[in-house]
Amino acid sequence: MRVFLAAFLLAAAATASPWGPSASWASTSSSASPTASPSGSTQQVFYGRFISTPSPDQLSINTGAVLVTSSDGRGTIENAVWNVTDLQTALSALDVQDGVPIIYAADNGFFFPGFIDSHIHAPQYPNLGLFEGTLLDWLQKYTYPMESSLSTTESPLYANSTTPPDPYARAHEVYAHVVASTLAHGTTTASYFATVDVGATNILAELALSMGQRAYIGRTCQDNKDNNPIYYRDNSTAEAIANTWSSIKYIQSLDPTGDLVAPIVTPRFAPGVTDESMTALAQIANDTNLRLQMHISENVREVALVAQMYPDQSSYAGVYDAHDLLTDRTILAHGVHLTDDEMDLIAARGSGVSHCPASNSALGSGIAQVRRMLAKGVHVGLGTDTAGGYNPSILETVRQAFLVSRELSFLANDDRSLDVPTTLALWLGTMGGAKVVSMEGRLGGFEPGMLWDVQEIALDAEGTNVDIFGWETWTERVSKWVWNGSRSNVNRVWVGGRLVSQR
Amino acid sequence: MRVFLAAFLLAAAATASPWGPSASWASTSSSASPTASPSGSTQQVFYGRFISTPSPDQLSINTGAVLVTSSDGRGTIENAVWNVTDLQTALSALDVQDGVPIIYAADNGFFFPGFIDSHIHAPQYPNLGLFEGTLLDWLQKYTYPMESSLSTTESPLYANSTTPPDPYARAHEVYAHVVASTLAHGTTTASYFATVDVGATNILAELALSMGQRAYIGRTCQDNKDNNPIYYRDNSTAEAIANTWSSIKYIQSLDPTGDLVAPIVTPRFAPGVTDESMTALAQIANDTNLRLQMHISENVREVALVAQMYPDQSSYAGVYDAHDLLTDRTILAHGVHLTDDEMDLIAARGSGVSHCPASNSALGSGIAQVRRMLAKGVHVGLGTDTAGGYNPSILETVRQAFLVSRELSFLANDDRSLDVPTTLALWLGTMGGAKVVSMEGRLGGFEPGMLWDVQEIALDAEGTNVDIFGWETWTERVSKWVWNGSRSNVNRVWVGGRLVSQR
Repeated sequence: MRVFLAAFLLAAAATASPWGPSASWASTSSSASPTASPSGSTQQVFYGRFISTPSPDQLSINTGAVLVTSSDGRGTIENAVWNVTDLQTALSALDVQDGVPIIYAADNGFFFPGFIDSHIHAPQYPNLGLFEGTLLDWLQKYTYPMESSLSTTESPLYANSTTPPDPYARAHEVYAHVVASTLAHGTTTASYFATVDVGATNILAELALSMGQRAYIGRTCQDNKDNNPIYYRDNSTAEAIANTWSSIKYIQSLDPTGDLVAPIVTPRFAPGVTDESMTALAQIANDTNLRLQMHISENVREVALVAQMYPDQSSYAGVYDAHDLLTDRTILAHGVHLTDDEMDLIAARGSGVSHCPASNSALGSGIAQVRRMLAKGVHVGLGTDTAGGYNPSILETVRQAFLVSRELSFLANDDRSLDVPTTLALWLGTMGGAKVVSMEGRLGGFEPGMLWDVQEIALDAEGTNVDIFGWETWTERVSKWVWNGSRSNVNRVWVGGRLVSQR
Repeated sequence: MRVFLAAFLLAAAATASPWGPSASWASTSSSASPTASPSGSTQQVFYGRFISTPSPDQLSINTGAVLVTSSDGRGTIENAVWNVTDLQTALSALDVQDGVPIIYAADNGFFFPGFIDSHIHAPQYPNLGLFEGTLLDWLQKYTYPMESSLSTTESPLYANSTTPPDPYARAHEVYAHVVASTLAHGTTTASYFATVDVGATNILAELALSMGQRAYIGRTCQDNKDNNPIYYRDNSTAEAIANTWSSIKYIQSLDPTGDLVAPIVTPRFAPGVTDESMTALAQIANDTNLRLQMHISENVREVALVAQMYPDQSSYAGVYDAHDLLTDRTILAHGVHLTDDEMDLIAARGSGVSHCPASNSALGSGIAQVRRMLAKGVHVGLGTDTAGGYNPSILETVRQAFLVSRELSFLANDDRSLDVPTTLALWLGTMGGAKVVSMEGRLGGFEPGMLWDVQEIALDAEGTNVDIFGWETWTERVSKWVWNGSRSNVNRVWVGGRLVSQR
């Protein structure tokens, strides 16, 4: 991983244009396409143990082989054979020709679907572990200063470092780190909030593309003068709309198919935007069929503020719905304090909720009602909410989803129907996330037709905190991985069949 | 670390006697004394950055040098000089002779007091990450089967592994792992619950001594026939008392000073023991001035069971107090549901509480009122409660202490006076823990007279999840370490001046 990162940092340093890549930089973006193997084959076979969560309460543990083809340019699972422990039998069953490369899962390990981080703020990555207080104060003290520093040479944050010569120097550095780090943690798809700045946002898109992460990238719209700092906001609604378009167009020019990297329309949260920009952004997204993302109902004071701003609307979700922002391509981050009526509305619209338990505990936001949302048919995935959450790992988010659910069940007189068991939490971080980012059927499992976005887990990796004695069943080993696994256990990561991270 | 572990496993395999060490094994115990440096000096100088929490709300960050002497056989801080950044000045100030070895803290790192795990079940270590349900069911399903398997060749748990030829084979293996792993996580002192079996308990004491961990080791007393499984209990109160004495005597023979390894009297929890054994064990501990440890008020059903067993007592703490078990040498694990009156009683008796937030969340036990206990003068430290807790790391426990406190403050209408900030949580894991294990003034900081029980943290270690950009203040770096640090960042660990773990 370090090698990859060093190379990209060098590349980033060579790209000084604030509005996008130099010609040489752009030319590297072709490397984002799933490439043929060194042997020239457009096929690869993955062989060994495969573990996944095909349904919310099912942990599938199987040995077999999966044939991945990149002839469609996407790195898709063409065929799979299960319950075989003999390679030749598997290759015959898959009708694989000689010369196709075979990739083996670690002996004391397995292939697992790549994690989907459905809510992550890329520019806040350097703030991981730095936070205090609750949402609205934290935004002013930690978040906006860091985000704004990614497109200036004059941030107060530069007091402890050399002033960068290039206003985008920190954007290049921070975004290269966040993509490399999340890939190294097994996150193959991320739905990123970037910053209000178009140039910095475009740099994130370039890096995700060249480093090979599936990424939805949103310039944040925040044109409400009352609830954004003067040094970090859209100066007018017209500017917000123009800059949203500008970033959309640029990102679409990088990856016209939108398969790997795509823009996502991002009105930050109801208090931070205006009536007019919400209407305009909904129209942009709905006309172009783009995804949408925004925060909802994270903090009780935020909810009260929205109620005060929109006294005619019945709820926070109602505000978004009145502006046509609740679609089946919409990701709503947090949803801690949603009412039953709001859950019903969100379910009816087909929108998804990104559950961010680490962040919600760290900022004292409360605990989201995951089981209640699922029961009502709301799509739910997981988000690290870097850096309200303190850790860029979805595996840590899986743990926290379990732990906070146990507080809920304790408070409800040991009502275990509120629990989020680890199998469900893993499902939320893969299959559930796929629904939330509008990639159901394409991500999260090992079914033919799905993309090969996969992490290889090694339980006995150097530096691991997972201690396997040898007598454990594979179900127990998965549980040990869930509870003590870390990036140390992520051996290799592929996106669309391309190897994008390696220890 | 791996080298150390391999050596001890070999040593362990060579020791087959169920009742204690072979002669050759016992002879290795002398290596537990703080040893002279290779140069023959009984002094060592530690130089660089030192970070600690001298008080609950103070993070001290300093550069300087500390002179440690082992001439007293203990590895004690003789002198310290602060606010120096020049080695020669420091050596002059400390009046250090030529030839004394100098140990440098990592450049991007620091010395930090070793962690104190005031509640850990050594035999449950293989169950880390394996749990479900709440306390009383979990004990039956996971805990007692694993604990009993450490002194038999016939456990159902051996279904997936070769039957060991030696009833203590698993005890040797598991206990070598738990000591090596906790040391590698920076835990220099542990208060261990072992099992009901004397031989297995004695093996843990031998290993802690030879591997150099400061450890209080308790054979669990559980003679109540109603609340212990037939396959895992003391068969009579008389047997419980005799076996308690037997283990005490053996452990005291290993380390007559009790400085490094000492027995701790361990009536498991009120439901698991009898009236008679509580009285007898209190008398043993009070006559010999030994420490005591037991569980208290972890789970609401457990509390109800105790109330039912002792209808004449006003509370769970009252039951222990009526048996003279609440002393200033007593460690009470959990204390989730203590009433105000119980806290007052515990404070009056000078007993300490081991706060185990990871375990309490994992088992749905609830959230302990740490700030309330501290305000009432109760001593509070941290415990991993391996394997109710899923991680053997006190640093993870520090994180969880913060996170669960934020749930409390959220539920109390954002009453921030309930928060356990990370500085306080670090204090609980060091200075607070020192009070709880009756080592106040000897452990937890860098004051002259304190033992050199210290971990060296390296922030840029291989495999670290701490991402330092270079512009962060040292306060921010500590925060990043707290939130994303792991055993990867623990470079070296000393106990009583002896180097006992190294990456």
